[in-house]
Amino acid sequence: MSDTLSPALLHKMHAYWRAANYLSVGQIYLQSNPLLKSPLKLEHVKPRLLGHWGTTPGLNFLYVHLNRLIQENDLNMIYIIGPGHGGPGIVANTYLEGSYTEFYPAIERNEHGLARLFRQFSWPYGIPSHVAPETPGSIHEGGELGYSLAHAFGAAFDNPDLIVSCVIGDGEAETGALAASWHSNKFLNPARDGAVLPILHLNGFKIANPTILARISKQELTELMLGYGYEPHFVEGDDPMLVHQLLASTLDSVLAKIREIQNKARANNQTESHERPKWPMIVFRTPKGWTGPKTVDGKPMEGTWRAHQVPIADFKTPEHLALLEVWLKSYKPEELFDENGKFLKELAALAPTGHRRMGANPHANGGLLMHSLTMPHFHDYAITVLQPGSVKAEATRVLGKFLRDVMKLNLEKENFRLFGPDETASNRLDAVFEVSGKEWMAEIDGVDVNLNQQGRVMEVLSEHLCQGWLEGYLLTGRHGFFSCYEAFIHIIDSMLNQHAKWLKVTKDIPWRKPIASLNYLLTSHVWRQDHNGFSHQDPGFIDHVANKKSDVVRIYLPPDANCLLSVADHCLRSRHYINVIIAGKQPEWQWLDIDAAVRHCSIGAGIWQWASNDEGKPDVVMACAGDVPTLETMAAVTLLREYIPDIRICVVNVVDLMVLQPQSEHPHGLEDHDFDALFTLDKPVIFAFHGYPTMIHKLTYRRHNHHNIHVRGYKEEGTTTTPFDMVVLNDLDRYRLALDAITRIPRLADRVEAETARYWTTMERHKLYVSEHGDDMPEVKDWRWSS
Amino acid sequence: MSDTLSPALLHKMHAYWRAANYLSVGQIYLQSNPLLKSPLKLEHVKPRLLGHWGTTPGLNFLYVHLNRLIQENDLNMIYIIGPGHGGPGIVANTYLEGSYTEFYPAIERNEHGLARLFRQFSWPYGIPSHVAPETPGSIHEGGELGYSLAHAFGAAFDNPDLIVSCVIGDGEAETGALAASWHSNKFLNPARDGAVLPILHLNGFKIANPTILARISKQELTELMLGYGYEPHFVEGDDPMLVHQLLASTLDSVLAKIREIQNKARANNQTESHERPKWPMIVFRTPKGWTGPKTVDGKPMEGTWRAHQVPIADFKTPEHLALLEVWLKSYKPEELFDENGKFLKELAALAPTGHRRMGANPHANGGLLMHSLTMPHFHDYAITVLQPGSVKAEATRVLGKFLRDVMKLNLEKENFRLFGPDETASNRLDAVFEVSGKEWMAEIDGVDVNLNQQGRVMEVLSEHLCQGWLEGYLLTGRHGFFSCYEAFIHIIDSMLNQHAKWLKVTKDIPWRKPIASLNYLLTSHVWRQDHNGFSHQDPGFIDHVANKKSDVVRIYLPPDANCLLSVADHCLRSRHYINVIIAGKQPEWQWLDIDAAVRHCSIGAGIWQWASNDEGKPDVVMACAGDVPTLETMAAVTLLREYIPDIRICVVNVVDLMVLQPQSEHPHGLEDHDFDALFTLDKPVIFAFHGYPTMIHKLTYRRHNHHNIHVRGYKEEGTTTTPFDMVVLNDLDRYRLALDAITRIPRLADRVEAETARYWTTMERHKLYVSEHGDDMPEVKDWRWSS
Repeated sequence: MSDTLSPALLHKMHAYWRAANYLSVGQIYLQSNPLLKSPLKLEHVKPRLLGHWGTTPGLNFLYVHLNRLIQENDLNMIYIIGPGHGGPGIVANTYLEGSYTEFYPAIERNEHGLARLFRQFSWPYGIPSHVAPETPGSIHEGGELGYSLAHAFGAAFDNPDLIVSCVIGDGEAETGALAASWHSNKFLNPARDGAVLPILHLNGFKIANPTILARISKQELTELMLGYGYEPHFVEGDDPMLVHQLLASTLDSVLAKIREIQNKARANNQTESHERPKWPMIVFRTPKGWTGPKTVDGKPMEGTWRAHQVPIADFKTPEHLALLEVWLKSYKPEELFDENGKFLKELAALAPTGHRRMGANPHANGGLLMHSLTMPHFHDYAITVLQPGSVKAEATRVLGKFLRDVMKLNLEKENFRLFGPDETASNRLDAVFEVSGKEWMAEIDGVDVNLNQQGRVMEVLSEHLCQGWLEGYLLTGRHGFFSCYEAFIHIIDSMLNQHAKWLKVTKDIPWRKPIASLNYLLTSHVWRQDHNGFSHQDPGFIDHVANKKSDVVRIYLPPDANCLLSVADHCLRSRHYINVIIAGKQPEWQWLDIDAAVRHCSIGAGIWQWASNDEGKPDVVMACAGDVPTLETMAAVTLLREYIPDIRICVVNVVDLMVLQPQSEHPHGLEDHDFDALFTLDKPVIFAFHGYPTMIHKLTYRRHNHHNIHVRGYKEEGTTTTPFDMVVLNDLDRYRLALDAITRIPRLADRVEAETARYWTTMERHKLYVSEHGDDMPEVKDWRWSS
Repeated sequence: MSDTLSPALLHKMHAYWRAANYLSVGQIYLQSNPLLKSPLKLEHVKPRLLGHWGTTPGLNFLYVHLNRLIQENDLNMIYIIGPGHGGPGIVANTYLEGSYTEFYPAIERNEHGLARLFRQFSWPYGIPSHVAPETPGSIHEGGELGYSLAHAFGAAFDNPDLIVSCVIGDGEAETGALAASWHSNKFLNPARDGAVLPILHLNGFKIANPTILARISKQELTELMLGYGYEPHFVEGDDPMLVHQLLASTLDSVLAKIREIQNKARANNQTESHERPKWPMIVFRTPKGWTGPKTVDGKPMEGTWRAHQVPIADFKTPEHLALLEVWLKSYKPEELFDENGKFLKELAALAPTGHRRMGANPHANGGLLMHSLTMPHFHDYAITVLQPGSVKAEATRVLGKFLRDVMKLNLEKENFRLFGPDETASNRLDAVFEVSGKEWMAEIDGVDVNLNQQGRVMEVLSEHLCQGWLEGYLLTGRHGFFSCYEAFIHIIDSMLNQHAKWLKVTKDIPWRKPIASLNYLLTSHVWRQDHNGFSHQDPGFIDHVANKKSDVVRIYLPPDANCLLSVADHCLRSRHYINVIIAGKQPEWQWLDIDAAVRHCSIGAGIWQWASNDEGKPDVVMACAGDVPTLETMAAVTLLREYIPDIRICVVNVVDLMVLQPQSEHPHGLEDHDFDALFTLDKPVIFAFHGYPTMIHKLTYRRHNHHNIHVRGYKEEGTTTTPFDMVVLNDLDRYRLALDAITRIPRLADRVEAETARYWTTMERHKLYVSEHGDDMPEVKDWRWSS
């Protein structure tokens, strides 16, 4: 094999790598004396040693080599780092290429800047230890592990010019999300999308254990990658000079392969189907903690799990200081930086320039590239509601038509996709198939419908992949919408956490531009999973999301189709939020015409005057949030009118859950006097809620009338039964709500006993009916409104 | 290839399969006329058609063949059904083998029983549509999809005699958890553990899409399975007669292979290491909805995604009734059941008997087999605490020694394992390695420590696998303990939901015996992830768990090592709960000697008299839950004593979070008067809490003094900083708590301004110090107690 790198280039690239390693070790250890101009003393070493050395030299090695590839081929490339613990390495490389100083001018490219660079790392009010939102060039935190490859594919979709190099740690590779992500190659179209180059970094160890993929045979690993649909290229070694040549030649051939795949796909008419390519991937096997101390305290260090974090700690042992100095000096900083601490020009010249630098690629700061969606006018999709409760509709089917046209109007922009775990049609959004199919690069068969290689609907039975792809797509400046069964969205609870944290932190980073919101539609929700049963019933995502920082989360419970349209339009236009919309797909009574819906949703909560008859002096407030609770509340109001004609009821519906919180806690929170105008100061409030009842208490405990708020919601009761029995099992049914109201109204005290008896009779009748008929009783239809 | 099945046996097995299919279709459709003795009429068809036909015939086919294998080889086998939607099939098979009627005597083995069997399915107050806890022989619900294979391995561990046949749906195979689960074969020791036989059921489609694994080439799928470390055996076809022979011969050779692997491993000295075997697995490719209608309404049905649920619906179309009748009659029920509706004897004889029936195998009702752990006396591990705050200890390290001896005392019983994602040593439980290593069947290298093939500590970088294995282990009657970083336990939120649902439902099934509790130790918690930063900080699992049914969840926040011992001992002895224990691993001040700790933990909350000086008349209650909040509260008390010597403080510590709820909501809830004795009726309560503050409000909103409870906790602020700065960032620090107290005590109103000024001066000093020194100020040590 002839050498890919000339001796001169090899020498320079190796020096560049040494510089990156030196800066990495410096960040972990030094608080001063950054160029070791004076002998290393204890006072130069930080008091707390934080950071992860183990993965860092490998990440640095790859960075230097990707720089060469970009330079020589003028590539548009970003770098996703699965082992996000390797923060110092990426900071070092973006510093060396100059992008770091552009974002953070105080970190100058001289000795003074080096001192600050070192000191700020993992230092209070400095920078985090991981590849973080603060790190230029990153769209991926990596602290949790598992999502790098899904993010990489999300970034590559609709970016035909982009190559996403994605390092996957061999520890990370053991996680579920990552194990599933390899199959993303069945959803990436080489004619339309960019390329993902997975680099499995086998450095062999986790915190305290070897990794599985480093301890199976090379043959098994090869088979595994072939089975996942990749062509593996192995780069293995511990002699840097040999590995430099091997990686360089491998990257050249891998790039050629990518180009070949893309050229072939793009030469054809792009609307034609072509064979799914076997994309190249690299297995990069190098020692953990490469170039670090070989042994510490007589124990092997380089190439072992001991190199995971800080290899030399405890500077009470005097030899450790000398060992650290030897280690740092082994990189020969004097050959890398001039006496002012400036990186030598001939080395710096190896890096790409401008936006070609991976630390400055605008795709890694997606807000810069984001264009607003062209939006259809959502009023055009509205259901005609001449009178509340006069017509039924399937809310999500109505939404589907709107989404179809969002898709249609942005087909040319190529910046909108719909994501879902095999549920787009089940969730009744199938109108979108009129304008776009489902992306599918695997084999297509005669019985398949709506599958093709040009689809913009992304369906795979993995919530992890839907979420990861969508995040990657949003973070690189595009828009999306994720529809999911409500119960199973918990599968990505942890991913939601990490994305929420990313949004929270990036809000305060001036150079990070806002991105499109992450929009969820949770449908097939708890109340209508009567057919699938208990395992499919869980409304707890609301609770999970509500714990996140209030300036990034929004939760909407539109009571009908027109409200859903208004909310969805708002969410798709919004920026930098996580929007959770919960709405059913079954035919349900409609309440508001579109104008009323818009007014209602813009405030977020309001009195439904047409259903109220209290003239401002209610006996009871019947409040509701969620479509099924709204239906039950409306029915309860009708029952109450029937039972006690002179009862004065005020009906309040809540769309935007966050209005319930005090304004001090959430920007959507109602002012106290507005809240009081809805919920009164002293009247009983019967609140029918979609989720777990305590959520309402959690949001309202500081409100004046809180002790009078009585909430019904899901209390973890359910099975395969009828829709109405689901609400009965959880005491959320109309009869229970009516009884609750009567029980709480002081002037009706003498009615309570009789009404309670009526309630139990009704329940007996219900149970008898459903167990005999296997279905619900015919429903109440004669709504009695005051108007 | 000579036929494995004789013509007579083939004929009978086929008939058995027809019977299972007939009963499956019957369950989905019929409410009467179970043997079709009269012509099918609309009134015989259920009003709501629920259930999943698509996967069912394949599951039935496998059941019949596994029965033969069990019968001929006297196997101890259970059957885990990943595609849990196929409920009717498993109910049908357990009915045919007789186990169903033993558990549910009302479902007799005659026409009357058949009618009930059919009608109860997916009928209100009947049985769920999925393979559910109600289903004999099941330890796996399967509604959520993804956890079958991990459950199977958990069941096989330490059950050398058991074979776990595990059907994995090809839809399920796309999930993250399942994709990671294949690698479980690196953790199963053939000498000690049972066998798992994965059967990948390629029926090609999900709800609305083909599956990935059905649409890659056979070569790729073969490579994938080889890469995962299995030897794939393909059984493919749509002609039942051919598939019968092929599956039978494949099962014979697969069993021979399993026996060969086990014999080889067991022939050696079992403490010796041996090569990791390539276990066999089966790819079973048969049509979705096999034997169902070929077409419905002119559209292809069998072998397409349309067969997923109910193939013929909408009986307003008159031809549909005839189509259903033809379908049902195609199984020739008259050849299968006698005129009383009893399954023909010669067919019934194919099934195994007694505990060999998969529906009656005691391993699938683990409580039957469970033996209590032999427990060391936890007092023996206690820290000596002569005076509160006089000694420091690492709580989890103390626990580690206790767990080591739990492990040791049960080594012979082989019924206890420790699970964790690469964090046992990081979480300072490494004392267990003195008695047991970490299980590892992949290659072992010289630098590895504590790895071997006989280990009982299960470490893999996948929370999904840890959880799935542990669930499988518990459900089959053993005990375990899962330690995890607090933030990343959210990865298994959804699995927790499903397990909690399983426990809730099984409590009400008389023949299901209680199993050991699922015990979590969450450590490396939010307050001490200062080094790893924001991504590692999340205390929200508490909120997630607290939403589950109160009779299955328990949350403990031991403030020190001795309390942790007491709580852990209690949890390991408990049954049928989910116990969450949150405790730190860093050296921290200790408060209670072991006797005091036991008293404190047994009540769950109490006044710490030694830290209080209120003589029953406090100015303020300083409450705390969690180790770091307790430390800050203790320090705040010391500060308050210093600032205002005559302040009267009552210190309350909460270990068992559920005591805060009213007794009506949770069995651990304190009676109101007991709660009031701790928290007073009218004094300000400053509550320092480990998690999100709203949790305390959610638990206490019905309590008398709720409006006086002021909670500090995690408010989603954090980064890489110092431990003390973490509490400062979230207003949970001692200075803030002290100021909170002063601000809320009416008689100190004139001090508020000065104390606020002092607070801000202190904060300035703190910030200056940490930003200059990169570390916290030396801590307060001179505790001032009243005693």
